[in-house]
Amino acid sequence: MARIILITGGCRSGKSGYAQELAESLPGRRVYVATCPVQDDEMRRRVEAHRRLRANKDWETIEQPLGIIQTLRETDHDVLLIDCLTLWVSNLMYQNEQDGKEVSESDVEQHAMDLIDACRSRPGTVVMVTNEVGMGIVPDNALARRYRDLIGRLNQTIASAADDVTFVACGLPIHLKES
Amino acid sequence: MARIILITGGCRSGKSGYAQELAESLPGRRVYVATCPVQDDEMRRRVEAHRRLRANKDWETIEQPLGIIQTLRETDHDVLLIDCLTLWVSNLMYQNEQDGKEVSESDVEQHAMDLIDACRSRPGTVVMVTNEVGMGIVPDNALARRYRDLIGRLNQTIASAADDVTFVACGLPIHLKES
Amino acid sequence: MARIILITGGCRSGKSGYAQELAESLPGRRVYVATCPVQDDEMRRRVEAHRRLRANKDWETIEQPLGIIQTLRETDHDVLLIDCLTLWVSNLMYQNEQDGKEVSESDVEQHAMDLIDACRSRPGTVVMVTNEVGMGIVPDNALARRYRDLIGRLNQTIASAADDVTFVACGLPIHLKES
Repeated sequence: MARIILITGGCRSGKSGYAQELAESLPGRRVYVATCPVQDDEMRRRVEAHRRLRANKDWETIEQPLGIIQTLRETDHDVLLIDCLTLWVSNLMYQNEQDGKEVSESDVEQHAMDLIDACRSRPGTVVMVTNEVGMGIVPDNALARRYRDLIGRLNQTIASAADDVTFVACGLPIHLKES
Repeated sequence: MARIILITGGCRSGKSGYAQELAESLPGRRVYVATCPVQDDEMRRRVEAHRRLRANKDWETIEQPLGIIQTLRETDHDVLLIDCLTLWVSNLMYQNEQDGKEVSESDVEQHAMDLIDACRSRPGTVVMVTNEVGMGIVPDNALARRYRDLIGRLNQTIASAADDVTFVACGLPIHLKES
Repeated sequence: MARIILITGGCRSGKSGYAQELAESLPGRRVYVATCPVQDDEMRRRVEAHRRLRANKDWETIEQPLGIIQTLRETDHDVLLIDCLTLWVSNLMYQNEQDGKEVSESDVEQHAMDLIDACRSRPGTVVMVTNEVGMGIVPDNALARRYRDLIGRLNQTIASAADDVTFVACGLPIHLKES
């Protein structure tokens, strides 16, 4: 039954760096699960910048935009870092849209609970990175509003089951929950 | 002189749920003051989802988009939960706009002080929910910028008078002020 | 070697007021470094409102949209308050754009390190105000996305070197780092 650590924060808050250092402080084999689909140059640069930060630190990398629950079930690393859950939800929304379907809040809640179940069925530590996206002005467009709702629901569901939850601002942690 | 508790957080941060559980932990008669005007299906669904969460928990409900100060003066419940102050300010802005007027920061400050006075003239506990809306990019349009300013001013004014202030992220509290 | 204090928060969170009170609690000669270029009436009103709050409190004021590093080197006040770093970065971006150049994250990191060096070469206390801009929805336009990245990088770099870092919400402090 893996220990679940959730790291949240805004864009460029230092949350990924914090999560990575935390993961590197733990012993054993480490795998980085990147949910970011590389579709344009801006994304490619972001992914490369992150990858460089992991170089020479004994990380394996798995690119997995959608199937992270399966990855949790099929790997046995001591430390698994998922960066990030928000992109995973974006990818789920995009895939569903292709099929003419909408992802609802209860869908996301179910996915989050499946994710937690998969963590509980494996050993080690699972560190997950998420984003705070709901502290700006209500967006004009309905899709962005729905996305905020889904991410907020996701964060609440994961945080409720997590052993540790940390909010990062300016690269510095605020501990919301500690085991 | 009612105890004033302010709960803040982003969209879907769990702030309403946190406020509701807190209110339900207090003894006595409870009333939920909903400031949300139901104008479309999206709103109706949100209101219904919140209402279901209160079912069977001995809540009375008052729908009051504008006159919450009067509600504070006319009710004598032990626990009054206002959800949320940000919609109250939206409603004030909308009403004033209909009359060709603008709500200024000093108007909002005055409304907030009247709200606090009304709390101080009644017994029990008043729990208020507000939103963080100023941690995104500066909005393109002037109305949204003004709204951010008004909400920020409101939050500072209420927080300054409140006995307890709690910031909620991922459903978890950070206590900013404790009585 | 000046003590460095960073105050962050959203729009109208009370961060400037908090920074100003903190600065006024320290002994000695005080200077307020305003990075805000006054280009329109909305800005003029904001600047005037801030200036009124400093009246009769023994503040000198320097308007310095770009050259704050030079100001740090050329002044010897006991307390220097820079309000705010985010506008400084906006001004750098605007100036570079005029010259057909882009400010990159590593440029901002370098500017931030030069700023820290300038603080370390002077006495007293330097209080800096910054903004949280990355907790809303990902903006549609690329410039706003780049701005978020730059501000996030700036905040991390300054916070890493600062002696004290405080996040302000609803006018109330959360201490992220304390000396």
